Amino acid sequence: MALNPQPGFFITLEGGEGSGKSTQARRLNAFLRRKGRDVVLTREPGGTTHGEAIREMLLSGLIRPFGSEAEALFFAVARREHVLHLIRPALQEGQVVICDRFADSTRAYQGVAGVAPETILRLEETALCDTHPDLTLILDIDPSMGLARAAGRSAADRFEGDELELHEARRQAFLKIAEAEPHRCVVIDAGLSMDEISAQIEAAVVARLPRAGGAS
Amino acid sequence: MALNPQPGFFITLEGGEGSGKSTQARRLNAFLRRKGRDVVLTREPGGTTHGEAIREMLLSGLIRPFGSEAEALFFAVARREHVLHLIRPALQEGQVVICDRFADSTRAYQGVAGVAPETILRLEETALCDTHPDLTLILDIDPSMGLARAAGRSAADRFEGDELELHEARRQAFLKIAEAEPHRCVVIDAGLSMDEISAQIEAAVVARLPRAGGAS
Repeated sequence: MALNPQPGFFITLEGGEGSGKSTQARRLNAFLRRKGRDVVLTREPGGTTHGEAIREMLLSGLIRPFGSEAEALFFAVARREHVLHLIRPALQEGQVVICDRFADSTRAYQGVAGVAPETILRLEETALCDTHPDLTLILDIDPSMGLARAAGRSAADRFEGDELELHEARRQAFLKIAEAEPHRCVVIDAGLSMDEISAQIEAAVVARLPRAGGAS
Repeated sequence: MALNPQPGFFITLEGGEGSGKSTQARRLNAFLRRKGRDVVLTREPGGTTHGEAIREMLLSGLIRPFGSEAEALFFAVARREHVLHLIRPALQEGQVVICDRFADSTRAYQGVAGVAPETILRLEETALCDTHPDLTLILDIDPSMGLARAAGRSAADRFEGDELELHEARRQAFLKIAEAEPHRCVVIDAGLSMDEISAQIEAAVVARLPRAGGAS
């Protein structure tokens, strides 16, 4: 069932600010561990030494004066390291990898910011080294609700400070990805309670995850 | 005499592998300190936290699969942080800043690698924030001699491993910069002994450095 040649299973969580991705990634990690799965929980940008450094550079706004293409490239470089040094090795060992944001975030954020689709796809190809998610959970939420949630949490970062219509455009970009790749993507209603969101995610994962030890 | 509005004086050392830049930067630092100058010695890529991280990424070859434009951008991002957080503040305090490699290295290395001159200049503009070297010492050496020196030192990094003709093309690129900007650049014969190179550099610096406390 897995799209990758590796024996593991690669799950990504995508969505806008305040959609609950990070919380749900942790909950999914705990859920799968309770089921006896060997799980790696990671995030983007980040997950490796260079990735975390790039994360800080991006969120601090250091890259911004160089434009959206530059931001897309920094995300892609961090992603390539993440794939080569963490995600792919884990999949090769048969682990389930849960990643909080991945290539679809670049498509949605930098795509909406005006980076050409062919540039994004070229960067994605170099970054992914043929390691594609088996399942992408798109946590869909009304941006005004998401931003209110995110605001209750911490100071706004580089991306949270953007205009509401940008957030709405990203939401539509995520939904368009889900529509274009229904075999990979499941849209989750993230406007519900955390428990209800978890229930939707667990159902989607259980339906798609190959049985442990079984042929994939 | 200084080209910058800041009261300090900004010296960069440029040249190919094994031209002795790093050694000469340290010697110049010691020379100016003996003369009672307040000196900051730094290097590129590097010099700041993010800069050192980018240095590692570049030298490890992580950025290479994304192409030469990507490498140029990473250098530029590191340079902007370096300028804003270290070089410019030091110049504003009246210090002499010695920097081992700066914008001319991007012009020579990424220019020879095929990055368009207009891309390089656009990146340079965003990176430098109007902070230009007052004096650039171009350490000129026959590449085969430079590489032999570098080889005696350590394992080859991402750039040392390139073909000899690439090194020769970069040498010519540095000499072209010196020809185009004679007010800023001094070509130093780096094929001589370390002491002879130091003597040339000290003479060039003494001739151009405004007297301490004097109007610049």
